[in-house]
Amino acid sequence: MSDGEKEVKRIPDATVARLPIYLRSLLELSADTLTVSSEQLADSAGVNAAKVRKDLSYLGSYGTRGVGYDVEYLQSQMRRALGLTHDWPVVIVGIGNLGAALANYGGFGDRGYPVAALVDADPDVVGTEYGGLVVQPASSLADVVREHGIGIGVITTPAAAAQDVADALIEAGVNSILNFAPTVVTVPDGVSLRKVDLAVEMQILSFYQQRRES
Amino acid sequence: MSDGEKEVKRIPDATVARLPIYLRSLLELSADTLTVSSEQLADSAGVNAAKVRKDLSYLGSYGTRGVGYDVEYLQSQMRRALGLTHDWPVVIVGIGNLGAALANYGGFGDRGYPVAALVDADPDVVGTEYGGLVVQPASSLADVVREHGIGIGVITTPAAAAQDVADALIEAGVNSILNFAPTVVTVPDGVSLRKVDLAVEMQILSFYQQRRES
Repeated sequence: MSDGEKEVKRIPDATVARLPIYLRSLLELSADTLTVSSEQLADSAGVNAAKVRKDLSYLGSYGTRGVGYDVEYLQSQMRRALGLTHDWPVVIVGIGNLGAALANYGGFGDRGYPVAALVDADPDVVGTEYGGLVVQPASSLADVVREHGIGIGVITTPAAAAQDVADALIEAGVNSILNFAPTVVTVPDGVSLRKVDLAVEMQILSFYQQRRES
Repeated sequence: MSDGEKEVKRIPDATVARLPIYLRSLLELSADTLTVSSEQLADSAGVNAAKVRKDLSYLGSYGTRGVGYDVEYLQSQMRRALGLTHDWPVVIVGIGNLGAALANYGGFGDRGYPVAALVDADPDVVGTEYGGLVVQPASSLADVVREHGIGIGVITTPAAAAQDVADALIEAGVNSILNFAPTVVTVPDGVSLRKVDLAVEMQILSFYQQRRES
């Protein structure tokens, strides 16, 4: 199975979540590094080496005892697994402070996730421009998704609007959602949802900061 | 122990990470909701009700069988535990696209984490203004931290600079770091580190998106 010809085993979610971390570690190795050990990759993801070997086995990668994994081959396997062999256009819905910030942030496009469209429900926001894109009305969401072949939606609305926007994205055919709105959004089976809540991160930090100071 | 008089038990990290989620759920309840069950809170955090009860017991909250938890009291306990009873000024280091975006984003200040200072190593960036703050040179980091009583640092530098910036923040007395740079940063014991990697989130989504399409 080392050549990946056989169908890849169903990869557990926890493994999927570590693959980008491994890939990042591989990209940080110096250019002349030909092989990498499971121990080296383990540190980056906060797991042990046995877990790394198990994770990589799902990609059909087994490495060589005493030598490790071929860096270039492992990179290409990860890129293929993570869908990094082509671009994934993204729509950002909710162009308030955070949405505008992300629209202006070039980091998505650099990584293969170009922001293809911006959408907002507020008539005063529609027509404004961020990162070279004109904000479209919420009513055109389905058209925008179809036109740009968008599979990933980023929600940056206020909490109260997030569920309706998620529903509209799914209705429009978007199956992957990254939710920045500070609320719980539910999606049906078959739709992927990830969330980033900056307030949660800050509150965890202030918990420890307070404990330290007391 | 229901009145929190006794010293609060050492709260496990996993519980700390769920407290902001519980708090968010409490804030989303309608204003006339007086009590909440562990089952209601469980859904929001993706754990079961027994885990919620265990988590809340660390705050000295036990609820009443058949009634649940007093919403207002639970909120105030969480706010106190998470340090939300006062502001925590923040410094953002690395004012590229993402740093500038976060500086302009009002969301931190709204939640009790006002951005007090911006710092960058690039002389061309120093002196520019975002969100009403003038970017300070890297050499003034320690002064800035002392002057504003900053306990939390946000790193938005390129990957290559992140570890040096983390070291400089810690040297300046900052004990809590939120790292957006797409790299692993290590910190000594006693320093809290959280990370947000937008590329990782997108790659996890494209993994599933690709699997769905194939």
